[in-house]
Amino acid sequence: MQNNLLAGKKGIIFGALDEKSIAWKTALQCHAAGAKLVLSNAPVALRMGEINKLADATEAPVVGADVTNMDDLKKLFEEAQKHFNGGVDFILHSIGMSLNVRKGKSYTEIDYGFNQKTLDISAMSLHRVLRTAWDMDAINEWGSVVALTYIAAQRVFPDYNEMADAKALLESVTRSFGYHYGVRKKVRVNTISQSPTRTTAGSGVKGFDGFVNYAEKMSPLGNASGDACASYCVSLFSDLTKYVTMQNLFHDGGFSFTGVTQAVIEQMEK
Amino acid sequence: MQNNLLAGKKGIIFGALDEKSIAWKTALQCHAAGAKLVLSNAPVALRMGEINKLADATEAPVVGADVTNMDDLKKLFEEAQKHFNGGVDFILHSIGMSLNVRKGKSYTEIDYGFNQKTLDISAMSLHRVLRTAWDMDAINEWGSVVALTYIAAQRVFPDYNEMADAKALLESVTRSFGYHYGVRKKVRVNTISQSPTRTTAGSGVKGFDGFVNYAEKMSPLGNASGDACASYCVSLFSDLTKYVTMQNLFHDGGFSFTGVTQAVIEQMEK
Amino acid sequence: MQNNLLAGKKGIIFGALDEKSIAWKTALQCHAAGAKLVLSNAPVALRMGEINKLADATEAPVVGADVTNMDDLKKLFEEAQKHFNGGVDFILHSIGMSLNVRKGKSYTEIDYGFNQKTLDISAMSLHRVLRTAWDMDAINEWGSVVALTYIAAQRVFPDYNEMADAKALLESVTRSFGYHYGVRKKVRVNTISQSPTRTTAGSGVKGFDGFVNYAEKMSPLGNASGDACASYCVSLFSDLTKYVTMQNLFHDGGFSFTGVTQAVIEQMEK
Amino acid sequence: MQNNLLAGKKGIIFGALDEKSIAWKTALQCHAAGAKLVLSNAPVALRMGEINKLADATEAPVVGADVTNMDDLKKLFEEAQKHFNGGVDFILHSIGMSLNVRKGKSYTEIDYGFNQKTLDISAMSLHRVLRTAWDMDAINEWGSVVALTYIAAQRVFPDYNEMADAKALLESVTRSFGYHYGVRKKVRVNTISQSPTRTTAGSGVKGFDGFVNYAEKMSPLGNASGDACASYCVSLFSDLTKYVTMQNLFHDGGFSFTGVTQAVIEQMEK
Repeated sequence: MQNNLLAGKKGIIFGALDEKSIAWKTALQCHAAGAKLVLSNAPVALRMGEINKLADATEAPVVGADVTNMDDLKKLFEEAQKHFNGGVDFILHSIGMSLNVRKGKSYTEIDYGFNQKTLDISAMSLHRVLRTAWDMDAINEWGSVVALTYIAAQRVFPDYNEMADAKALLESVTRSFGYHYGVRKKVRVNTISQSPTRTTAGSGVKGFDGFVNYAEKMSPLGNASGDACASYCVSLFSDLTKYVTMQNLFHDGGFSFTGVTQAVIEQMEK
Repeated sequence: MQNNLLAGKKGIIFGALDEKSIAWKTALQCHAAGAKLVLSNAPVALRMGEINKLADATEAPVVGADVTNMDDLKKLFEEAQKHFNGGVDFILHSIGMSLNVRKGKSYTEIDYGFNQKTLDISAMSLHRVLRTAWDMDAINEWGSVVALTYIAAQRVFPDYNEMADAKALLESVTRSFGYHYGVRKKVRVNTISQSPTRTTAGSGVKGFDGFVNYAEKMSPLGNASGDACASYCVSLFSDLTKYVTMQNLFHDGGFSFTGVTQAVIEQMEK
Repeated sequence: MQNNLLAGKKGIIFGALDEKSIAWKTALQCHAAGAKLVLSNAPVALRMGEINKLADATEAPVVGADVTNMDDLKKLFEEAQKHFNGGVDFILHSIGMSLNVRKGKSYTEIDYGFNQKTLDISAMSLHRVLRTAWDMDAINEWGSVVALTYIAAQRVFPDYNEMADAKALLESVTRSFGYHYGVRKKVRVNTISQSPTRTTAGSGVKGFDGFVNYAEKMSPLGNASGDACASYCVSLFSDLTKYVTMQNLFHDGGFSFTGVTQAVIEQMEK
Repeated sequence: MQNNLLAGKKGIIFGALDEKSIAWKTALQCHAAGAKLVLSNAPVALRMGEINKLADATEAPVVGADVTNMDDLKKLFEEAQKHFNGGVDFILHSIGMSLNVRKGKSYTEIDYGFNQKTLDISAMSLHRVLRTAWDMDAINEWGSVVALTYIAAQRVFPDYNEMADAKALLESVTRSFGYHYGVRKKVRVNTISQSPTRTTAGSGVKGFDGFVNYAEKMSPLGNASGDACASYCVSLFSDLTKYVTMQNLFHDGGFSFTGVTQAVIEQMEK
């Protein structure tokens, strides 16, 4: 899609690992809509991923940052402001990691040290990003911040494990910081609760395929793709949505308000 | 705002009474974004309002329709399809009326005959519109329908009276019909839950001014204006939001997720 | 269960058709917990049902009332107050009927005249009951009113049809009237959102069995039985829950906050 | 209130500091309803509080436990099982602490080390308690676990600070562990979202008095007292509520579903 919806806007995109990443697709669409970008990811992800391809395609510098490290975040915002020659208009937070999931520990046997890291990386990182910007006054008035989340924050999907709790925490941080940044500077902060998406990160979750199929059958429009999510991000970064804040926005083809579909009932009767 | 976000799209706008109306502002912005329009309102509203000004500004025909009359609705869709030379891509439902409110009857003393009309005009009218389109197959694939609602559907605002119940019903119809239209034709249906807005209709509600002030103080971004709401409608009619359906979307400067603000606490301490 | 939790309390139970009815079971448990009762149902239901058995078992008079008829309701409350020699402490509203469902009309082809009756009988009847009591000042301070509802008010279950909209309206009336009756007289009003239950009424819904099985598999505790629902009603009529009001309380074995279970995922993989 | 609702049941009560504590009042009411108890609190709280008075009144042993220490929790459950000569039927989790609040740090300037402790003590402690019981199979079938929370988990109350995020996390743990414990052993897990209550802990929060007054004016029934909350806990520990699980239950006089009251509007107009 080609439009000028983000002309003149400047944004930081966290979490583009490879071309399947929602953050990757969002960066491409934001660029196409006229935005200027800075890309960031964890140092280890930068090494594993192919972010330089994206950097070329979007004419954006890459600045590594460990989102649990306040010095890294400060340096990132300093470099972004220098690159933009001014403040930031939008931020995408597409960050999540669970060592307990990786290690195959079920919810009832999680390691609490790992859990603390999961909460810090996947949820409190949003607080750290916003607080860094807050201290530096780095987000422009009417700026827009979006973090990606999942409906497991509201309802239990057993295999999603401790990430459900992390997402609930993330959504609370969204509201809490959204209040303060709204009052002070009209900055809005929202989460998008996206359909399960076959990204490299998502694929690590046990039983992921079965679950994607279930969600597909339970969504009147089918699962939302990563590309569609990127488009939705563009709308939330644009001036069309200036008064939407502190919300959790379901982008899921109707899954969230569907109790059951004919397709699932038929499968249950088999 | 000038963009081509709705280029090639065709829509019906219900409920533009005068230039304060959200529907009026939405029509203007949709037109500016490249859409082709048909305007509709109740015959009595057409007589009272100044809709011809809007028709001129948006190069759109006006087709009167009583939304509780299936023949009127059928005729409207027939004329729209003829004018568009094809199906409809989006619809705005900005319709509500309470005879009990007009007559000054409080919630505990409503007239049940009036109430039945309130529910029919303000809520079941959405079912009637969608069902007319459904029977005629008049909405194009991936079409988008938006109805305007208010947070009184979730929480009690005493002066909002029986309209709270009507809006709860409207939001349920949104989900119910949204499911069916999504499965059949990928059409999405959503409500926008808008800040209290000083329209000609809104002004009729008892205690409205006090209430607008309260909402202003309780919203981190302040109340969303009618113009901002129109912009949000544009985003929901566009292809940026194709997988959002069956949702109630708060467009209220954060009011819905704010329990209390410093400004209200200070007022309470006076 | 034998306890004295409702000793000295007086209540009206609407909707006991036969021994499968939740209202029937609730009447029995309220009686066992020490309450004095009046039973009511629609004249046609009185003829079809076996309510005299229940009347004997609970030592309660039966007073027929069409809940869409204000004169009937007034007469009912007059007889109840005479029988109780005083005001009412609790009310169970277990009333619902959809002519469109009975006639096999799907949601997209409902008859609007039938729909108006569905909304009146299934939802506005709660307003009528409360308003009758309000006008006669017939509910004692700290009284408790419970209406039965279903999660289709929040999420779409296609076969539940227009009853979903009726339940959404019922829940809104619960909040709206709950506000007023709370402020005036400390009366609380709540809904219980119950698991699908194999009552004589429920059995009429198309695809009901498949749906009960699905709900069973989707509820960590399994579906809540009618007997369990009756127990929950007792707790809500008792003084243990005096500050719970305007709530929709899920009594469903965890269905409402379960996104998917292992059992459903396994079925989907077949 | 005297009844035999919990006759034969055995429970652990966490968090009774002094006679203003909700946990204290709950212990007294559970005892009066026939339950056998074990009391627990943090070692430091045991030294500061007057828990021996409660221990005498309820004939219950006191077992100190740091809820972030798995060895302490294991020892607690071992002692409880010995005292009860069997498993546990119910647990009250009334635990919360924020060093950032104590140190007067606002939400936008929290110390992340303190925050990690807040989340661990106030939220993950519920996971630790349940997981300890799970590993020891220490909760009887149909057992009931209740944790106390606050509506700041859903909507922002600025002075509630990081505790809002902790409560959101707590509520998510409730759902997540509630699913697993429900499937395995029919154990239910819920939170009660209680009105602001003048406890010794609550009083530490900045602006608490102004806020209690606001909540009082915004609740149709007024704020729920600690005694009323204790009664509600009794109902949730009893067999009357066996199919309620994974829920957040508002016990707040209607605050949660009231958008505004006449009393607040009048204050706003001053």
